[in-house]
Amino acid sequence: MSAIRHALSVKRADDFAQWYQEVVSAADLAEESGVRGCMVIKPWGWGIWERIQKLMDARIKAAGVQNCYFPIFIPLANFEREAEHVEGFAKEMAVVTHHRLIADEHGKLVPDPEARLEEPLVVRPTSETIIGDAMARWIQSWRDLPLLLNQWANVVRWEMRTRMFLRTSEFLWQEGHTAHADREDALRETHRALEMYRACAEEDLAMPVIAGEKPENERFPGAEETWSIEAMMQDGKALQAGTSHYLGTSFAEAAGIQYQDREGGQQFCHTTSWGVSTRLIGGVIMVHGDDDGLRVPPAIAPQQVVILPMLREDEGDAQLLEYCDELRSGLAIQSALGEPVRVQLDSRPGKAAAKRWDWVRKGVPVILEVGPRDMEAGKVSLLRRDRLWNANAKPDFAAPSLEECVAGIGPMLDEVQQALFDEARERREANITREIATMDELEAFYAEDRRCPGWAEVQWAKPIGSALEAVTEQLKALKLTIRNVPVGAQPADGACIFTGEPAVERIYVARAY
Amino acid sequence: MSAIRHALSVKRADDFAQWYQEVVSAADLAEESGVRGCMVIKPWGWGIWERIQKLMDARIKAAGVQNCYFPIFIPLANFEREAEHVEGFAKEMAVVTHHRLIADEHGKLVPDPEARLEEPLVVRPTSETIIGDAMARWIQSWRDLPLLLNQWANVVRWEMRTRMFLRTSEFLWQEGHTAHADREDALRETHRALEMYRACAEEDLAMPVIAGEKPENERFPGAEETWSIEAMMQDGKALQAGTSHYLGTSFAEAAGIQYQDREGGQQFCHTTSWGVSTRLIGGVIMVHGDDDGLRVPPAIAPQQVVILPMLREDEGDAQLLEYCDELRSGLAIQSALGEPVRVQLDSRPGKAAAKRWDWVRKGVPVILEVGPRDMEAGKVSLLRRDRLWNANAKPDFAAPSLEECVAGIGPMLDEVQQALFDEARERREANITREIATMDELEAFYAEDRRCPGWAEVQWAKPIGSALEAVTEQLKALKLTIRNVPVGAQPADGACIFTGEPAVERIYVARAY
Repeated sequence: MSAIRHALSVKRADDFAQWYQEVVSAADLAEESGVRGCMVIKPWGWGIWERIQKLMDARIKAAGVQNCYFPIFIPLANFEREAEHVEGFAKEMAVVTHHRLIADEHGKLVPDPEARLEEPLVVRPTSETIIGDAMARWIQSWRDLPLLLNQWANVVRWEMRTRMFLRTSEFLWQEGHTAHADREDALRETHRALEMYRACAEEDLAMPVIAGEKPENERFPGAEETWSIEAMMQDGKALQAGTSHYLGTSFAEAAGIQYQDREGGQQFCHTTSWGVSTRLIGGVIMVHGDDDGLRVPPAIAPQQVVILPMLREDEGDAQLLEYCDELRSGLAIQSALGEPVRVQLDSRPGKAAAKRWDWVRKGVPVILEVGPRDMEAGKVSLLRRDRLWNANAKPDFAAPSLEECVAGIGPMLDEVQQALFDEARERREANITREIATMDELEAFYAEDRRCPGWAEVQWAKPIGSALEAVTEQLKALKLTIRNVPVGAQPADGACIFTGEPAVERIYVARAY
Repeated sequence: MSAIRHALSVKRADDFAQWYQEVVSAADLAEESGVRGCMVIKPWGWGIWERIQKLMDARIKAAGVQNCYFPIFIPLANFEREAEHVEGFAKEMAVVTHHRLIADEHGKLVPDPEARLEEPLVVRPTSETIIGDAMARWIQSWRDLPLLLNQWANVVRWEMRTRMFLRTSEFLWQEGHTAHADREDALRETHRALEMYRACAEEDLAMPVIAGEKPENERFPGAEETWSIEAMMQDGKALQAGTSHYLGTSFAEAAGIQYQDREGGQQFCHTTSWGVSTRLIGGVIMVHGDDDGLRVPPAIAPQQVVILPMLREDEGDAQLLEYCDELRSGLAIQSALGEPVRVQLDSRPGKAAAKRWDWVRKGVPVILEVGPRDMEAGKVSLLRRDRLWNANAKPDFAAPSLEECVAGIGPMLDEVQQALFDEARERREANITREIATMDELEAFYAEDRRCPGWAEVQWAKPIGSALEAVTEQLKALKLTIRNVPVGAQPADGACIFTGEPAVERIYVARAY
């Protein structure tokens, strides 16, 4: 039996970080822009983001949240008034100080000293403070509550070390911002958003996640509670893939977001915020990618099926293209995952085999190759991206008739979506240990030089303040972090692995991006 | 006969500029943000933009253009290499000079002198230069052409005098950028984009436009040809609502966008760019608004129908809401303009009459009020926003049965869309004069203190260089500009109104935003 000749030059097992970079490039997702820390998102990568946006936006709207748009620039003064928020954010931000360029004596463009801004502006790292200003204007009485807002926007956080999709200076996201009459309603919204993220990650991205609360030292600056969804990558590390924050009344107090209650009294609103970003695409790569490139779950694939005619640049091509177009139009009126099937007939010049491997690397869920012999037999050659290789280390082509292919495409795409999710969930479960009861065991577990060290679910006494800091330091020495306290976990029944005290809950510990 | 009591405090006839501001505010479209020159786009305004985006994006994708995303920051050096482009843009731009803030001795945040950027970055005013860099990387051979790209993004041009939607420092737009093997193919794309904008403006926004070429002094910096669509506002001024540029090879030469032709030679690409922005919403306001607020064409209305139950806060409300929900679900499965009808049941607390006028000001195409008596009679009270008042100066309610209302909604919305377009086109045609043959006549025409001075279609000899400048100065004295040379106009048959020479073509002259 010959060995499989994979489409990438680097294997996950050999160098996961290098493999990641190769997938980003080979799947034509994004590339360095030449502008520090900013990437160019190429059409296939952008198409995936458009799909994620569309599906997430429908979930956001279904919850009664209204989209709107706030300025990209935030005055410095906004960052000065909420103490914790300042400390958390007033660091690495892009600062606009001038509004004009002029040519210097060498003809080089420089900021015009005459056009210095009296008050510098910050390119938004997040919009709590400026949306808070609007909420203070828009909310008068209890009748105006809850106020549920969202924006899709670019944000900038100056990053020293960047990695495409995972950590870039500019990234794209949605940020939900809501104001409520009381704590209970705000917490309900915090959890609704968290559950929305879980559902989107698992159902749309086929990416299993653990939803739970972050420990107090990992909260968003100024938040009272921060909740996250955490996904396991194929190297065993955790990726925080979305967060939902209950902000208490601190932002409302800083921005003056008040309402008149039913009794005529003035009350501060309780606010929340929640967001997911282009980082999700990094998660999709590291959850579903393999040694042949990306595998895009059908729900978020810009194209779900690609048809590759084996053109010979002769007079037979016209008939072949006609057959392929019949196939295309037949597929386009089928449904998968509740939407019309997205199918592309790729009749660009070039060899069919080269194009096949381009599409394999991009991770289109189903590839249909059609040559003159397929056409004569009324068939197509079908390759499923999630099951690429057969036992003989060859691409595992099936040969359905055109009619079978068309009739079967909907169920097949549903099946691919589910298969990717199941595979990822099984891998995650296989890489979570729940057997660790002491720090020594934890140290030993992560000391082994395994390729996928995975996560540990352990019990703890939920220390706070300096006791929590001590725990964090202990973990940091092992390059570990607390991910979250999972929703719906078994109650604690043992001792805290950090302090030996009776445990109060279970937490996930992992290396993380 | 009593006088109509309009929903706005300012009439178009009394103060058009003030009326515009009142519509923006009363229709809940946008507001000042407190950040210089930047606005907050509120949910109803944003919903209109989302509709425009959706319809335009479908047109863009149908043309085979691929969406992608480029960095918000552009290095200064990019602006130094294309001489004309520098001159046009290297002026009022937001310049990022620092990447960190620190607190000074008073606790005030200031840019950290230690975190000064070696090379300042510009917040993109447009992306020709950075997309040109990518094109240079992506294009190798004739097989890679045409390369058709588009991005939806925010851009910043520091503006001294701003007006919401019409001229703001930050605005949202799409920018198409394409590269072609030759001039002919690039010109074809320039015209395709122009025709796409005409169709979107007229079919989606119900806004009649004149498509044509701008004179050379109004070209985009660095372009060889600039084409525009121009719409007439209700004060007779022109609004440039979209532009499409043929850039020749100048940007390709500056960025090194080359390809190997079929014969193996190296050639520079011919590039184009084209864009429309949130300015379109300003056009919609000034074309369709009236003395009661905005009128949103159904194709771009976030909601096309709003149902207002006349709630009494008693036990009868439940049954009324049930009736309204039956109405809502009946309407939601109807189609108008090729899509499911967008209908909202507004059951928020508050008086139905107050809510009616809120929706009138927002310009929802159809309002359905339902009180207990309507319900008992199996009817609804229907108000069409485009025909608000009856001969007695009262809201012109119709009283169809629920079934008639549901069955008729699709055709009615189609009709409203067409009626708004027809009204705007008739007004425009009534306000274009084609009788002016001399500068004296032109001066006399615009000297009259008419409320809607309108446009003049005149003939000219197409002067260039300094002769064109002289013409421009003459027009400027009358506060006039040349809008464009319309596509498909009658051939010239007279003398140039500026020079008396034989005319070569017809142009539109107007006051403009």
